[in-house]
Parts: sequence; C-alpha cells; structure tokens
Amino acid sequence: MMKKIISFEDLKPNSDGMVPVIVQDVHDHAILMLAYMNKEAFDTTLKTGKMTYWSRSRDELWTKGLTSGHLQYVKSLTADCDYDTLLAEVEQVGNIACHTGNRSCFFHPVYEEE
Amino acid sequence: MMKKIISFEDLKPNSDGMVPVIVQDVHDHAILMLAYMNKEAFDTTLKTGKMTYWSRSRDELWTKGLTSGHLQYVKSLTADCDYDTLLAEVEQVGNIACHTGNRSCFFHPVYEEE
Repeated sequence: MMKKIISFEDLKPNSDGMVPVIVQDVHDHAILMLAYMNKEAFDTTLKTGKMTYWSRSRDELWTKGLTSGHLQYVKSLTADCDYDTLLAEVEQVGNIACHTGNRSCFFHPVYEEE
Repeated sequence: MMKKIISFEDLKPNSDGMVPVIVQDVHDHAILMLAYMNKEAFDTTLKTGKMTYWSRSRDELWTKGLTSGHLQYVKSLTADCDYDTLLAEVEQVGNIACHTGNRSCFFHPVYEEE
C-alpha cells in the first residue's frame, strides 16, 4: 500500500495543468521516456501502482501498456526541489517503453563529434 | 567539435517555445534535474559545450553553474521519438546540480510504503 506524502495539490503544474514525469528503469537507471500527469493520472498511479499519464495527443487518461502489455510498475516517485517535476523509477514490463519498439524513447542523437 | 545532426527547428517545442531537457549524470546515470531550452539556449549549449537553459523564472539565458561554479559539460544530447524532449548526459562539476546544495533536484518522496 502506498501512503501519500505529497498530493497533486502540493505540486506546481504547468499552464496546461500538467506535471512532467521522467521515467527511469529501476534496475539500470536508463531513461525510458518523459510523460505528463494531471491530477487524475497522478491519483490513478498511486492507487493502482501502474504508471498512468494524461495523453496530450489523445486527450485521455493513459495507463501505459494497457494495450501493448508494456506496463510500468511504480517503484518510487519523487518530486523535485520546486515541486514542478516528478521522477519515477519503474519496473518496465517487456523492457520496451517506446511505441516504436525501442526500449527507450531517446534514440535520436543531436550531434556527432568531429 | 560538435557537428549538429538535429537543429532546434527539427524539434517540437511546447506552447511556450521550450523543450524540456532531462539532465543525467554521465557516470552513474543519476537524474540531476529537468530544465528547459529555447533556440538560443540550445544553440549556445552546442556552441560552448556547457549546458545552457532558459530560466523561466528570471526570463533569461542561463548557463548552469556560471555563478555557482557547478557547470555541466555536455557528454551526449539525444532527442526522443517524437522530438519534443531532450536527454543530456553531463559531467557535473562539483557533483552538485541543485540550488539547494543537493546533488540532485529530486529529493521529495511522494509516498511511503505502509
């Protein structure tokens, strides 16, 4: 059972009412993705233990992996110094977080060394 | 020398013209902070090799560590699948990223186990 220390009301959402969430693999600390939570997504995550976001493209509650099977189980959730960002450590089912089939959403290098 | 593969124009900024940047320690993969870049911050980072953000509170260009000494040297910069978020691996000078003196900005647990 997860007992809340911080409520969504304690956070400082952006102008869209959202808080960004950095999602990190609990085992090797790889960054898997960045997503957004509103109050409903935050409360659902804490109630179910499954990472749940607000899909800004579909404008709906989105329990990650509900259709793909690639659920993310919450292992820790931490707010930053000024309460406007969250960091989640997760157990990533299937070791795939990205809708492209990649493990991580981060795979486009911005520069190369010359 | 860093040769750009992705320009700021290739990214999809939020409604404020900003792209969030996850900042990770290159050595042990700890998450240090989340900050934001506009085009000026992005181009300055690639030109100087020093992580440079847009300070939303001060509304000015902000080369991290310029006053505190806790500079962040870019070791890699990667865009995500849909080009709206960046991940930076950095060499964190002084091993302190947070203005509170903590190593990482993430130190407020959201829940405890019962």
